[in-house]
Amino acid sequence: MRAIEAEAVVRYTDAGGLAEALSGADALFVYDFLSMAVPGAWHAADRLHWLHIASAGVDPVMFPGLRESEVVLTNSRGVFDDAIAEYVLGVVLAFAKGFARSLELQREVRWQHRESERIAGTEALVVGTGPIGRSIARLLRAAGMRVSGVGRRARTGDPDFGDVHASSELALHLPSADYVVAVAPLTEHTKGLFDAKAFAAMKPSARFVNVGRGELVVTADLVAALREGALAGAALDVFDIEPLPSESPLWTLPNVLVSPHMSGDFLGWRNALVEVFAGNFTRWRAGEALHNVVDKQLGYVPSVS
Amino acid sequence: MRAIEAEAVVRYTDAGGLAEALSGADALFVYDFLSMAVPGAWHAADRLHWLHIASAGVDPVMFPGLRESEVVLTNSRGVFDDAIAEYVLGVVLAFAKGFARSLELQREVRWQHRESERIAGTEALVVGTGPIGRSIARLLRAAGMRVSGVGRRARTGDPDFGDVHASSELALHLPSADYVVAVAPLTEHTKGLFDAKAFAAMKPSARFVNVGRGELVVTADLVAALREGALAGAALDVFDIEPLPSESPLWTLPNVLVSPHMSGDFLGWRNALVEVFAGNFTRWRAGEALHNVVDKQLGYVPSVS
Repeated sequence: MRAIEAEAVVRYTDAGGLAEALSGADALFVYDFLSMAVPGAWHAADRLHWLHIASAGVDPVMFPGLRESEVVLTNSRGVFDDAIAEYVLGVVLAFAKGFARSLELQREVRWQHRESERIAGTEALVVGTGPIGRSIARLLRAAGMRVSGVGRRARTGDPDFGDVHASSELALHLPSADYVVAVAPLTEHTKGLFDAKAFAAMKPSARFVNVGRGELVVTADLVAALREGALAGAALDVFDIEPLPSESPLWTLPNVLVSPHMSGDFLGWRNALVEVFAGNFTRWRAGEALHNVVDKQLGYVPSVS
Repeated sequence: MRAIEAEAVVRYTDAGGLAEALSGADALFVYDFLSMAVPGAWHAADRLHWLHIASAGVDPVMFPGLRESEVVLTNSRGVFDDAIAEYVLGVVLAFAKGFARSLELQREVRWQHRESERIAGTEALVVGTGPIGRSIARLLRAAGMRVSGVGRRARTGDPDFGDVHASSELALHLPSADYVVAVAPLTEHTKGLFDAKAFAAMKPSARFVNVGRGELVVTADLVAALREGALAGAALDVFDIEPLPSESPLWTLPNVLVSPHMSGDFLGWRNALVEVFAGNFTRWRAGEALHNVVDKQLGYVPSVS
């Protein structure tokens, strides 16, 4: 931030001081991307032109006041893509090779030979075709999996996804998938996309991976599906309530991997996030077009293609 | 085995009946590849021409009686390559993403955000350049890692390994590796290759992966290195004594993943092993050259290249 402090008055604040700091500010950098403080302080945004958020998903700031304003919204698209892709490949392999069971047997000092699954040739359906979904698709494909995507518009011949199916046809493509990866932006169209009907359409041997947003899922339906054996496992990095409440059955259900919203947070991510903001700050000062401008009606940065 | 039973008298036996069954037999298929029964029954091999083993490593049958005989030895080269490669990529990602810690925190119902490591750009040294090592190199490279190999002869420009370093120079190449993967055949030259000196040459942040043979490692030296922090972790699928004795400190050392010699044993491996034998049986009956003929002086099937 040193370079920015040389060019602008920078006010650092927590949620409590946000309204006071926002008054008179031209730009706002929301570093705690899950903070719900912005709507409550919005009345004080008397000359704000630009809001930048330290995340890929912008759902926490998609409140009417911002959507209807002239304030330009930019996100941190790109920072997390490859780290999240590695995480997804990791949980796919953890399921296929039974690592959780190996660790359990190790704690019990038990030598119990088992057979494992191959991932080559298995089918992954990546729901969400933005840059994170694309990086996931590329890496799973490189590891020998068959990949297709689910996005806004159906298309074929995508270099990473191969086929992209329209999200309206999601249910048609769930039954053949061995791994279903949720990485769509959270919008009014995607909220609750993974509900009882979706889980019922999956194979009993399928695993569900959520690295998008918890609210893409109807959590009660996921819990019921896991209990009933409608799917074989889930790796969940995001939840509709975070931190995940201690009474959630997801903590203890078998074949569920819970991680604390960390899949994209590689060593160095904080610097990378500040660099994205600093790059846009330089462009903003120079009067140039900002990068990663969010379409506030869609709720994400539209892909170029 | 049905097809073979139509063409030959097939005797099935366990270790206790091996000598009796071996008398008068032309071919021996050792299915329990870790069995030490063959040397003890060798006196009964009165007309044996061919011994096939259901494994890639042939060290259990490398006793002088076989080495000095005219008996042709073939192995199951190829069956395990890609499954083991997936396993190695899986443990690399498990270390980088801290899955063991995530599972531990999950058991404790604790939400504790942590940062994770990237694997792209990290360096893997694959010690052993046979088909399993090659498959590992190919997959780690596809996942974005920088890979080099250690083999009998130094060479450059290998499509999978890039550079292959001579095993005599192993110590020179250990210090830069983030992941060291042991997959060399067990021979008199490789026994104890990973000793105190080798572990001392590794980075304190390095992880050691053994999917070759336990005896490639001086186990006491590995335990000491892990205790002293000379390396950051180990994923061990093979051990000098199997099953790993319950008193071994490897079961409980932090940052050690123990698995029960299963990395290559994907669903379907038993059929695949019988198919390899059946293919060679057909060639043998037709008087054709067998596949996967082991060089009994080297102790493995020499690569074509």
